[in-house]
Amino acid sequence: MNMSACTIAVIGDGQMGLVMADAFVVRGCVTRVFSPFEESARSLRETRTTSRLPGFHVHESIIITADPRTALDDADLIVNAIPTQFTRAVWERLAPHDRTPVQAAPIVSVTKGIEESTLRRPSQVIAEAVGDDPDDPQRDIAVLSGPTIAAELARRLPATMVVAARNEALTHLVQDACNVPWLRVYRHDDIIGVELAGATKNVIALAAGIVDGLDIGDNAKSALLARGLAEIARLGVALGAKVDTFFGVAGVGDLATTCFSPEGRNRTCGERLGRGETLAHILATTESIVEGVSTSRALRQVAQAHGVDMPIACAVHAILFDGKTPADAIQDLMGRELKAERIG
Amino acid sequence: MNMSACTIAVIGDGQMGLVMADAFVVRGCVTRVFSPFEESARSLRETRTTSRLPGFHVHESIIITADPRTALDDADLIVNAIPTQFTRAVWERLAPHDRTPVQAAPIVSVTKGIEESTLRRPSQVIAEAVGDDPDDPQRDIAVLSGPTIAAELARRLPATMVVAARNEALTHLVQDACNVPWLRVYRHDDIIGVELAGATKNVIALAAGIVDGLDIGDNAKSALLARGLAEIARLGVALGAKVDTFFGVAGVGDLATTCFSPEGRNRTCGERLGRGETLAHILATTESIVEGVSTSRALRQVAQAHGVDMPIACAVHAILFDGKTPADAIQDLMGRELKAERIG
Repeated sequence: MNMSACTIAVIGDGQMGLVMADAFVVRGCVTRVFSPFEESARSLRETRTTSRLPGFHVHESIIITADPRTALDDADLIVNAIPTQFTRAVWERLAPHDRTPVQAAPIVSVTKGIEESTLRRPSQVIAEAVGDDPDDPQRDIAVLSGPTIAAELARRLPATMVVAARNEALTHLVQDACNVPWLRVYRHDDIIGVELAGATKNVIALAAGIVDGLDIGDNAKSALLARGLAEIARLGVALGAKVDTFFGVAGVGDLATTCFSPEGRNRTCGERLGRGETLAHILATTESIVEGVSTSRALRQVAQAHGVDMPIACAVHAILFDGKTPADAIQDLMGRELKAERIG
Repeated sequence: MNMSACTIAVIGDGQMGLVMADAFVVRGCVTRVFSPFEESARSLRETRTTSRLPGFHVHESIIITADPRTALDDADLIVNAIPTQFTRAVWERLAPHDRTPVQAAPIVSVTKGIEESTLRRPSQVIAEAVGDDPDDPQRDIAVLSGPTIAAELARRLPATMVVAARNEALTHLVQDACNVPWLRVYRHDDIIGVELAGATKNVIALAAGIVDGLDIGDNAKSALLARGLAEIARLGVALGAKVDTFFGVAGVGDLATTCFSPEGRNRTCGERLGRGETLAHILATTESIVEGVSTSRALRQVAQAHGVDMPIACAVHAILFDGKTPADAIQDLMGRELKAERIG
């Protein structure tokens, strides 16, 4: 496709929104970034920099706006990059400026989380906000996920992602729009799996960070990664995802980078917890959203509702909200009854 | 089981042999370590230290011997911890001192590799060396594998492993013998999968190290981990393993620690390759065996024989033996045709 004829509206001016916009503009697309806040849009427009991505330059040709109509007008593709717990409110503001469903542009969401109040995935929240059925949307909605530490994408270091949609043509469009030398996108058909893998891995990453904070080594962290992967795969299957999705780029790939990259926000939050800092203090001194914290609450509810055993996610929840010490939680996990390994 | 009545012979005085012996002796077993070299046995016996594990103390009650008969006499369990390419020769020396098959002690192998000359797994090599059928042994032979960086086990930091055998009673015995506070062993029935996962991950770890040496980030490394896992799982299935095994502790768990731990020998070798050092120079300046190098040769042959596509393993082989530059190899991997993701 000739991408210079393609207009992409990126909703959200956080790290992921900006690095995705960087790819689209290099790919030749007309690229707009919608900021929910006028002040934030003005600062980005004028300085072309952001404190969240030191050293990153926002390309001059990217249009930055806080006006929904300017952002959405004639867009061929809309990219959601709003943090999960704010996605509904932002899309409810956008909806009146969205076109009628028949002419509406397809949407692809890169947000990783679960809405706490409804236990819905971001793509479902968007569907509802634009007046569609979250479980059977008429609108073309895709999800795009993978191991994408934003600071690395900002430096245009190589990365892979997975795009899933019901409509295969949409997966080709997203693949094409992202086809820059540093990004490789695989197509997939498991929307639930790709989106859930991206959400749930943040909770396992908190646990991995806690292991780092306790300084008990990479053997323990890798065990936790493997057992954590098994439990999020189990949950995914209970919710209608395919188990294989969790063992691909969007599953284990994303989980590995989130658990091991020093840059990861969720891992870093976990590390500070492991060292004894309180959650309140960590969140008060972290500029970006730590998605895993609210996902942990949502995940516990979802797991209970579906009767899925998630010992690691439960341990993280107990540390975050019930005052359990990290050392006790790890000891409990290691001390569980010796048994046969079960995956999925 | 009362472990003080259990005698364990550990064959091999390398890192893994010594840290396994440390667990057995703490568990209360009578523990012997067989060294293939008299000089090495004497040094270990006298100093109770080894240059391969700085700071580690070899427990006074561990019997260290270079005499096969002393090592094997009345053993209840024999643990193989000899590097792959030397396993056959050592076991051919042991065989005359081994008991008749009827009374013979069960064996568990912790060695990770594939014998280059025969393309056999270590447990098959052992079976042959003691005069048994490598594909249908009468002897009870188990494999024990997992994310176990030896330097961490030496510090008694928490770790997990998986034991697989045909005879479930043997998996219980191994689980019991390893039941110290820092080790948690899961039982499994997929000998081929557990053993192959441990062997093949070393080749992916070389690739991960190369990514580190090129300094292209954790997104790329995690993509490589995920795609590498998919290709070793594909090979495993072609060879009769269960795909799930690769997504458990012995598969993805071991792969994660090997790809990310700074201590890993294969990853470190890859990192030096990525920085431009030659393989010959790296091997000449590395004290321990880098299993992934010979496994890479064996793996290529096995993959070709079974018609399994292994682009990452092939790229590693080309870098190691065909003079391909790491940068070119990574570019080729990233530039492959965009397609749908396929696992297993």
